[in-house]
Amino acid sequence: MNNSLKVAMVVIGDEILNGRTTDLNANWLAKFLFKEGMLLTSTHFIRDHEVEIMNTLNRALDQADIVITSGGIGPTLDDMTKKCLAKMFGKTISENPAIIPVIEENYRRFGRTWNPGLNFYHHFPEDFLAINNPKGLAPGLGYYLADRKKLILSGPGVPREFHEMVSNEFFSLIQNYFSGRFVKNYQTIVRTHSVPEEKIFGELEPELWSKLEKFGKVSSLPHTIGIDIIISYNGSEENHQLTQQKIKEIFEQSKMHEFVWQYGNLSLSEMILKKATEKKITFGFAESCTGGLTSSKFTDLSGSSVCFMGTIVSYDNSIKEKFLAVKSDTLKTFGAVSEQTVKEMCEGGKKALNVDICVAITGIAGPTGGSVEKPVGTVYFGVHSKHGTHTETTVAPGDRTRKKDRFSDRALLLLLEEIQKF
Amino acid sequence: MNNSLKVAMVVIGDEILNGRTTDLNANWLAKFLFKEGMLLTSTHFIRDHEVEIMNTLNRALDQADIVITSGGIGPTLDDMTKKCLAKMFGKTISENPAIIPVIEENYRRFGRTWNPGLNFYHHFPEDFLAINNPKGLAPGLGYYLADRKKLILSGPGVPREFHEMVSNEFFSLIQNYFSGRFVKNYQTIVRTHSVPEEKIFGELEPELWSKLEKFGKVSSLPHTIGIDIIISYNGSEENHQLTQQKIKEIFEQSKMHEFVWQYGNLSLSEMILKKATEKKITFGFAESCTGGLTSSKFTDLSGSSVCFMGTIVSYDNSIKEKFLAVKSDTLKTFGAVSEQTVKEMCEGGKKALNVDICVAITGIAGPTGGSVEKPVGTVYFGVHSKHGTHTETTVAPGDRTRKKDRFSDRALLLLLEEIQKF
Repeated sequence: MNNSLKVAMVVIGDEILNGRTTDLNANWLAKFLFKEGMLLTSTHFIRDHEVEIMNTLNRALDQADIVITSGGIGPTLDDMTKKCLAKMFGKTISENPAIIPVIEENYRRFGRTWNPGLNFYHHFPEDFLAINNPKGLAPGLGYYLADRKKLILSGPGVPREFHEMVSNEFFSLIQNYFSGRFVKNYQTIVRTHSVPEEKIFGELEPELWSKLEKFGKVSSLPHTIGIDIIISYNGSEENHQLTQQKIKEIFEQSKMHEFVWQYGNLSLSEMILKKATEKKITFGFAESCTGGLTSSKFTDLSGSSVCFMGTIVSYDNSIKEKFLAVKSDTLKTFGAVSEQTVKEMCEGGKKALNVDICVAITGIAGPTGGSVEKPVGTVYFGVHSKHGTHTETTVAPGDRTRKKDRFSDRALLLLLEEIQKF
Repeated sequence: MNNSLKVAMVVIGDEILNGRTTDLNANWLAKFLFKEGMLLTSTHFIRDHEVEIMNTLNRALDQADIVITSGGIGPTLDDMTKKCLAKMFGKTISENPAIIPVIEENYRRFGRTWNPGLNFYHHFPEDFLAINNPKGLAPGLGYYLADRKKLILSGPGVPREFHEMVSNEFFSLIQNYFSGRFVKNYQTIVRTHSVPEEKIFGELEPELWSKLEKFGKVSSLPHTIGIDIIISYNGSEENHQLTQQKIKEIFEQSKMHEFVWQYGNLSLSEMILKKATEKKITFGFAESCTGGLTSSKFTDLSGSSVCFMGTIVSYDNSIKEKFLAVKSDTLKTFGAVSEQTVKEMCEGGKKALNVDICVAITGIAGPTGGSVEKPVGTVYFGVHSKHGTHTETTVAPGDRTRKKDRFSDRALLLLLEEIQKF
């Protein structure tokens, strides 16, 4: 049914399996292949070990149309990939004058001169393609198994070299050998908040999953503030537009309607930036237990300075009083983690920062500091704008950093909802 | 020769292979196993596909003593791991009253009540262990193949749940089934700053690596602010203490001495909290381009409120003027990203926040906003205390979030150095 080109990836190198190096190629390749309409069927991380390499490559070739490897194509003789590939296909490795221009060109790009005493790049398995390395020195290797219609491509482990070689050199070879096999993958993503997965597909909308399955493969991904529901399918751009519309209608007619915060794939911060820019709204935060995380998350976005003015991180009560005009009496009577305090924080914060909206957060991130009435995880949110003041409270699970993560995402969701009132 | 326990990992889930989710378990597990003296021999990422799961698990069991899987143990019937494990070992899945207490305990921890209509957690393959999930709801699965002396353990895909279950529950089971196969690994860690790896072991101390290799396996790990040098060895606790002392002496007599910020494994924030608490010092930040990240990192630590008072995130220039008393003239003449501005930020910040030390950061996180004199990545730091004002500048590489990460860690290092003057 699924005619997509199948790709298997093999990452070769001891340094990844002992945790010393974090692989940055596998996830990148997954995204690249998805975008180009290919299907990554498996990724294997294996050691610099001849038998394991050959066994894994053989199995990968059985299962996929294309096998891509990263790592082990360096200058020394103990780099294993070249040796194993030659052995697998019964090829000898010898000096190959035909590929020297590729190596010389790679060196020239770095302003250096290659000579045969430097390394073993020019020792190559017979009948293999030497592949240009636009960001590095070691040439990649390519071999097409004409009888089985399969292609194996080996690139470097260094991420920037691998990404560049795959995007250009490997992708051209794939298009060349497998023209006519490209199927475009599409996804419709519905982002929801405040309802757990089992409640969405249980109590609220027991028929929803099967309704969505008519369009393609359904999956759900939990996030800090809710569940993303993803429907994946092949087809044309036209069909995709139609499918998106139909899925939107299903949700709009369901009980989930009020819990959808986006039909699409933007992050909370991206949505906020988009809406706040459109409506020319400025905002800031008054953060206590989140310690600046909410502001930091939003400022991960380039362009955030258009609408984000600043934040008072009022960890100590003295800062709450001095900068946010929280009354000493309020803190004494109700405590720093209370509805009364958060109300004064967002109202004082709006005035102090001179913004259209201020969102305040105060809570107990733990693991200490809880009490019977206010257990660890208790948090109060306050939002103030010309539309008034909204407060809410909840108790969140998870460890300290997980709580900060949830609190700050919830604060961003409240900000987004407030922006939509303008 | 190597008697270490061999572990293979299998990560199950379409969402990772299509690039929608980045796996955070494989690299974490690699590090954990290394630390505990086990050998990760391979990691496989595969789809939610019955035949592929079963084939991969079978091959993994052939090659390793222990197979650990992550993903696919959720509440719905399409979570594949449980089904495949049962099929592989010829077990039926049925309601198992014996494991209900584990599920109920997981729910109780979140202040919720479980009942059998909610999900399929209590449907379990016969003879399998239900494993407690300290951070989540779905129980893990364990099965020991007594005849082959092999163990298979299945945990959740959610990273915090997986990490906790592996560190505690899985590790106890492994120690139980494979007692006597453990060789204790020790590490001496030397944390350095401001010098790149090739300079440490080249220009500065060409003999250092070979001196350290006499004690064990040497490795180096780059971080945002410098290089960690790690020496790993087996042996007794007594030998470990002696080795640590000897390695410290080697560094103290080397040119690297001034670039070591710690002999040990604390984070920057942990070191700051320890020293600031000892010396009863309070501090705060004036953050611009880091947007609150520095404060957020420090407040990830429980107990941080003892010394951290608060922060002004002065993204907009109006906030710099109003709260940090940066002069309008300074901003006009030198710009927001300048030595003059950062000096006024930290001096104004110390006064405003009423703290012993204030660290200020202003820079261009990019990708836009750079100029010829001040390219993207330019950053100024300012530190002010009773010991005076220190400023410095640098240009950092990397994308926007990477820059924020580097900038905030550098700010924390400067704070630590200032605390040590007291």
